[in-house]
Amino acid sequence: MYFARNLKSKGRDRSSVLIVGAGPSGIGVATALKQAGVTDMQIVDAREIGASFLNWPRQMSLLTPSFHSNSFGLTDLNAIDPETSPADYLRTQHPKGDQYAKYLRAVAVYHELPIRTGVRVHGLAKEGDHFIASTDKGDLKADIVVWATGQFFSPRDQAFPGAELALHSSKVNDWNELKGDEFTVIGGYESGLDAALNLVDLGKSVSLHSRGEPWSSDDPDPSRSISPRTFDRLREILQSSEKSKKLELFKNSDICRIEESQGWWTLFDQDEIPSVSHIRPILANGFHSGLEPVQSLFAHDENNLPVFSEEADESTLTPGLFYSGPALVHRNSLFCFIYKFRARFGVVAREIASRLGKSEIDEKLSSYDKAGFINTDLDCCTNCECAIEPSDAAPEPKAFS
Amino acid sequence: MYFARNLKSKGRDRSSVLIVGAGPSGIGVATALKQAGVTDMQIVDAREIGASFLNWPRQMSLLTPSFHSNSFGLTDLNAIDPETSPADYLRTQHPKGDQYAKYLRAVAVYHELPIRTGVRVHGLAKEGDHFIASTDKGDLKADIVVWATGQFFSPRDQAFPGAELALHSSKVNDWNELKGDEFTVIGGYESGLDAALNLVDLGKSVSLHSRGEPWSSDDPDPSRSISPRTFDRLREILQSSEKSKKLELFKNSDICRIEESQGWWTLFDQDEIPSVSHIRPILANGFHSGLEPVQSLFAHDENNLPVFSEEADESTLTPGLFYSGPALVHRNSLFCFIYKFRARFGVVAREIASRLGKSEIDEKLSSYDKAGFINTDLDCCTNCECAIEPSDAAPEPKAFS
Repeated sequence: MYFARNLKSKGRDRSSVLIVGAGPSGIGVATALKQAGVTDMQIVDAREIGASFLNWPRQMSLLTPSFHSNSFGLTDLNAIDPETSPADYLRTQHPKGDQYAKYLRAVAVYHELPIRTGVRVHGLAKEGDHFIASTDKGDLKADIVVWATGQFFSPRDQAFPGAELALHSSKVNDWNELKGDEFTVIGGYESGLDAALNLVDLGKSVSLHSRGEPWSSDDPDPSRSISPRTFDRLREILQSSEKSKKLELFKNSDICRIEESQGWWTLFDQDEIPSVSHIRPILANGFHSGLEPVQSLFAHDENNLPVFSEEADESTLTPGLFYSGPALVHRNSLFCFIYKFRARFGVVAREIASRLGKSEIDEKLSSYDKAGFINTDLDCCTNCECAIEPSDAAPEPKAFS
Repeated sequence: MYFARNLKSKGRDRSSVLIVGAGPSGIGVATALKQAGVTDMQIVDAREIGASFLNWPRQMSLLTPSFHSNSFGLTDLNAIDPETSPADYLRTQHPKGDQYAKYLRAVAVYHELPIRTGVRVHGLAKEGDHFIASTDKGDLKADIVVWATGQFFSPRDQAFPGAELALHSSKVNDWNELKGDEFTVIGGYESGLDAALNLVDLGKSVSLHSRGEPWSSDDPDPSRSISPRTFDRLREILQSSEKSKKLELFKNSDICRIEESQGWWTLFDQDEIPSVSHIRPILANGFHSGLEPVQSLFAHDENNLPVFSEEADESTLTPGLFYSGPALVHRNSLFCFIYKFRARFGVVAREIASRLGKSEIDEKLSSYDKAGFINTDLDCCTNCECAIEPSDAAPEPKAFS
């Protein structure tokens, strides 16, 4: 536990607001709540502050660049508190996982957030007008719950038959620790490319199989295309005569099944075309929403995506249960970057503070409003075409298999 | 000339607005003016669109990262038109000079801006209620002038006795073209560090002399400290046992005089302590304001900095003469990044459009307002301390001489 002094020993298991998860969304919402005048809250996390980031592969860093342009209304893309900047705090543009966790701890300490770590919530139920969260440390009661667990510990490692035979990319501590020279990576979005590029940088050969051809997407929404940084890294490798030989990109190769036999792995794509790997393949297909333990408390749409109220990201089935984090979706817009889901911190905090009868909330949250952390324009990203089309002659990866 | 069709042959040398300079500030203001309903303008440039960037050393790139987060109100830090993103257009995070010039051309083409290149303005005078700009292609008349020439072609290459004996960093086309192995660089801010880091990357040894110790500054204003990207590059070199041997940083070594004798250069610091260079030293001490040709038309403060009206960056001596660009200063805040000086594009355009009697200007400029391109909060950067102090244990350059 971090700030025991803030928790009365009596009634410690009961609070107005319970926030589940002490990552960027949990700490971000808690900070906004505190700013809005809400103090009777507790934040619990099964692990430690920023545990997802601490468990990233050592070589991995944030995709969005940090820059301390806050004072011009352009808040550092990775900030979760409008008054801070990871670039300024860490003096780096692309914080690694352990650095970002350090930033999160600094924000939590600065705001004296009442965080209890090592408390795993395994179930949540509403009884009458309050919630009961069952945890491995006993029940916690709250009037309002914000689910903010993140996705990192919900890898999609059972996505198809034999998927469990692969090594999920999130389980890698350090790409340098993997033995062997010829790797197969399944997945061509950010985590797959990150795996492949790190392995090639370490002198390994990589065959990467991707459902589509994401590295050629020109969707103007960063949630649906490759980040500029990854493009730069990919381009650098493809333009190196030495390194480009080490990377083979197989587009439209949707691996649907894996079989293992005597130390060989055979991967089958959508047309049952096999590929063989002598090393355990890397599965870099991303994550589930992290909402699994509370799935039944949320409605789901026809694509089985959770439904959130447009007013304040609340469950439409279970009043008082809010969500904050990268699984947020509104009007087909994905909020899967920090700079996107933080845009709702102030919306959630304002609604909760209002229900708890706090006063002068808008004044208290004015810095959040100014920084774009109270975004109520849910069409913000449904029409984000740029005036000028991507340059046809822009340098593109030139060597695809 | 780019869009001859937009210029009537009659009266071609007369327009309501004359913009001098076709770089980010000139094209940015012209685009904002067009948005505000002003069409009777011409833009002239002595060279070509984005000439400064085309003349950057080949290895140099923008310090501020591009990311296409525009749709969340976080306009790409290097965009000059709120509807565009260099990251999206160029698919890179740190555009090189030629790439950024290409982006500028694309914006100019998209908005059909009436740009005449190869027209050098060598003087400006106000006669009655209009301006006469004398150029190498004849006189141009205008009611309003926006000076937007940039700084790149005004290097500070006469800053001290013997400065002209050095090679100014802006004159280098490609760091790879310089002969020799042991270089001396004068200047420890961005351009000096960029020179040194590029040379070390090419296997050269570098002694860098800096007035202060800018790499240790923790000023939260990016205009007064080293950018995160440069920090990352410096850290990478200092953490490499091989490369760190190649870089010597001399802090508090303010070179005040250079003498040359028989192919040797002797540099003297503020205490007359000499250093010797066998190769022509690199002078990376930055640029003049670019306002030299119109200096007498602007008031200057006690530090000899030009004074601009707080209302709209207009000369306080010469009504109708505006400025846009990196030499902008207000209340001791430097606007020397694109994301800073663009914050005044809408302010200048709104004022000019208003004087020209245009209607519904605010409506027409609403996208500029939303994107922060009409910043009237001139205290924006005078108090940009962050809530959390820079981490004392953040990785720092560890090996200073």
